[in-house]
Amino acid sequence: MAKKKKPRKSVRGFRPVTLSTPADYREEIAGVCLKAKQASRLLALTSTAARNRALESIASALERRRDEILFKNEIDLEAGRKAGLSAALLDRLTLTADRVRAMSQGLRDIAQLPDPLDETVSEWKRPNGLVVRKVRVPLGVVAMIYEARPNVTVDSAGLCLKSGNAVVLRGGKEAFNSNTALVGVVQSALGETEISPAAVQFVSTTDRAAIRDLVRMDKLVDLVIPRGGEEMVQAIRDMATVPVLSHGKGLCAVYVDKAADLDMAARIAFNAKVQRPGVCNAMETLLVHRDVAGRFLPGMVGKYAAAGVEVHGDDETKRLGGKTVKAARSEDWDTEFLNLTVAVKVVASLEEAVAHINMHGSHHSDSIVTDDAGAAEKFLSQVDSAAVFHNASTRLHDGSVFGLGAEMGISTQKLHARGTMGLRELTTTKYVVRGSGQVRE
Amino acid sequence: MAKKKKPRKSVRGFRPVTLSTPADYREEIAGVCLKAKQASRLLALTSTAARNRALESIASALERRRDEILFKNEIDLEAGRKAGLSAALLDRLTLTADRVRAMSQGLRDIAQLPDPLDETVSEWKRPNGLVVRKVRVPLGVVAMIYEARPNVTVDSAGLCLKSGNAVVLRGGKEAFNSNTALVGVVQSALGETEISPAAVQFVSTTDRAAIRDLVRMDKLVDLVIPRGGEEMVQAIRDMATVPVLSHGKGLCAVYVDKAADLDMAARIAFNAKVQRPGVCNAMETLLVHRDVAGRFLPGMVGKYAAAGVEVHGDDETKRLGGKTVKAARSEDWDTEFLNLTVAVKVVASLEEAVAHINMHGSHHSDSIVTDDAGAAEKFLSQVDSAAVFHNASTRLHDGSVFGLGAEMGISTQKLHARGTMGLRELTTTKYVVRGSGQVRE
Repeated sequence: MAKKKKPRKSVRGFRPVTLSTPADYREEIAGVCLKAKQASRLLALTSTAARNRALESIASALERRRDEILFKNEIDLEAGRKAGLSAALLDRLTLTADRVRAMSQGLRDIAQLPDPLDETVSEWKRPNGLVVRKVRVPLGVVAMIYEARPNVTVDSAGLCLKSGNAVVLRGGKEAFNSNTALVGVVQSALGETEISPAAVQFVSTTDRAAIRDLVRMDKLVDLVIPRGGEEMVQAIRDMATVPVLSHGKGLCAVYVDKAADLDMAARIAFNAKVQRPGVCNAMETLLVHRDVAGRFLPGMVGKYAAAGVEVHGDDETKRLGGKTVKAARSEDWDTEFLNLTVAVKVVASLEEAVAHINMHGSHHSDSIVTDDAGAAEKFLSQVDSAAVFHNASTRLHDGSVFGLGAEMGISTQKLHARGTMGLRELTTTKYVVRGSGQVRE
Repeated sequence: MAKKKKPRKSVRGFRPVTLSTPADYREEIAGVCLKAKQASRLLALTSTAARNRALESIASALERRRDEILFKNEIDLEAGRKAGLSAALLDRLTLTADRVRAMSQGLRDIAQLPDPLDETVSEWKRPNGLVVRKVRVPLGVVAMIYEARPNVTVDSAGLCLKSGNAVVLRGGKEAFNSNTALVGVVQSALGETEISPAAVQFVSTTDRAAIRDLVRMDKLVDLVIPRGGEEMVQAIRDMATVPVLSHGKGLCAVYVDKAADLDMAARIAFNAKVQRPGVCNAMETLLVHRDVAGRFLPGMVGKYAAAGVEVHGDDETKRLGGKTVKAARSEDWDTEFLNLTVAVKVVASLEEAVAHINMHGSHHSDSIVTDDAGAAEKFLSQVDSAAVFHNASTRLHDGSVFGLGAEMGISTQKLHARGTMGLRELTTTKYVVRGSGQVRE
């Protein structure tokens, strides 16, 4: 816990220790980041095998030292219960033997993934004999800022080490004891490998003011990844001078075209809403072509009602869906419900559906259900989103479903990373040019 | 010229027109950007051939309407001479028949380049039958903010149209009449093609305050590219909420290793400094291994002296180079001279050279001269720069030298674009996923 701020006053040469003034954070944070930067230079040069062995070594250490981790976690849980944390937050904070095993397995899975640093993006020879090679290299230092879930500590360290990056971890204060224990296990496991323990740094102050200093270390940190709610991400974007990469808000839509297979449409519209409503790639808006609305909506509304889904519909949907449908207000089209609520609208055309999605959606994941190939192509090319689907649920936008392995979230940015983000998004490129004395004429 | 700001005061219901209040710009700029956004949706769907025909059509129109362009340019030049612009600035502002021809040729060259939108980054099929395709798509709307050179107007429009992006142009006020004429020619030429003239928008206020509004249009503009001095770029970065992509400062070094071919080293060190000293990929710092300094530096200093290069050397360089060498001050190692000045330092090892470059350089372009393959590999992998060279001049870091065609500058950022930036850097990607009813289990 951070100490209270004391006045900095010199009394007969005695200067009180004031650990929590902003200046002290800047110094502490700069020290942590500098160590990470230095470690990153060596880490970038290690072999794939050495990095994979390090992941394996951490995985084993986590299992070996499980009881110690669970003991520290219990301290956080006890404090959390006393502080009146919500059941959901306490659940996110909780570690169990199974969850520790899952963290280890996660690291082993990362070790199995292809090394993004092995990739030569392209290579060519110029008429003057110059050989130009564009290779993939680590970014350098990645700062991870997250909230209650302690598994993010291990997960982030694993992704960064695999991609050759040093990492500065800054977890939430609720998980402080758990995170300290986990980082301790990670660092001591690294101590027995070729990878320097300094490649995994931990910010040990839990005062939020330290985050501002961390995200402004643009000489030492190459990327900030905030993993948390929209508000936290926006606050970090506003403060940061280091580039920020983050998971985007998901206001996703499914459009049931006039040429849709209506059974398939019902399965997809149900799955996209109900299977896990609290996540970014769940559907929030269902658009239905007028020509099939009469055949589709009454049954769909019934299925939703049976699953406890609240339907907010436009006039046409209300007319067709019956009395369980509530009247949609205009803000419903711009709302990411993240629960069992869906906004439903009848549209006159594919064009209207596309325009609605481009206007109200969050450019995350959107789907068309249709048997008309031409309509599908129009939708896929005209909807301006990170992922567009034909005859499939928006819930499928996911790194592991796509076969890309570990995912750090889904970006709705257009620069550097768009859509599901994995190891490759933690790298940059470099031109390596080999000559034999060439100069510019 | 922008009007002076007047107080907004209502006198008996009469409210004076105050064109230059920030609110008015916001509205004007939002209007311009909205038109660009709408045009970008259609532009993204055009064929390669249609976009190339548009470039060809603009190229011809520029040549056909050359006299009109030169006439408007003369108005700017006249105003510039009266305002006492420097000779260098007037030169950058000047259009001639040859320069108009070069602009047309530039567009024809861009038309010849491969279409970045043709590229499928990757495509694969999942066990559940889902086909995932990662394709390259335009960013949408690009805002170009530049200074005196009117050719940037045509060049930027060409690069954006080729890559399927609408563009909002905001040139310097010195070139206002020239830019207005050029944009008029571009738009009327587009009027006779399949591409909407609205895809090229021009900000017609020359008040700098309008730039702030433009770079904060993050709902309508996808990327800002400032083309100008370091100060202008930094000011835009500070104000922008739209992502910024810019040309980076170039503090480049050449390291002459103990195993260097000294004749080759002299040719490269001379070329990198002298061939065009005012550009980003020119060398500013020369590092020489102690073991060859005695044989290399006296001759090199002589060659520099003969070419009018001022050498700022450390003690060892002063001792070896004689009286033409001035004593280097510590800030010399961090200075981008951009003229005929070079900072020269003798180092004890390859490691010292690498550490110096990573500490003092701008991570742009750095070169090692050596016949030792192991030393070269160390340097190439350990120097953290956008381009690293072995036995070649740093001046070769250039889109056309690399065979990539049109260049918009060289980025020293690590995210999205690193090194020479061309058409591909004006695109993003999108996952296009085709299914047959797949849902998330």
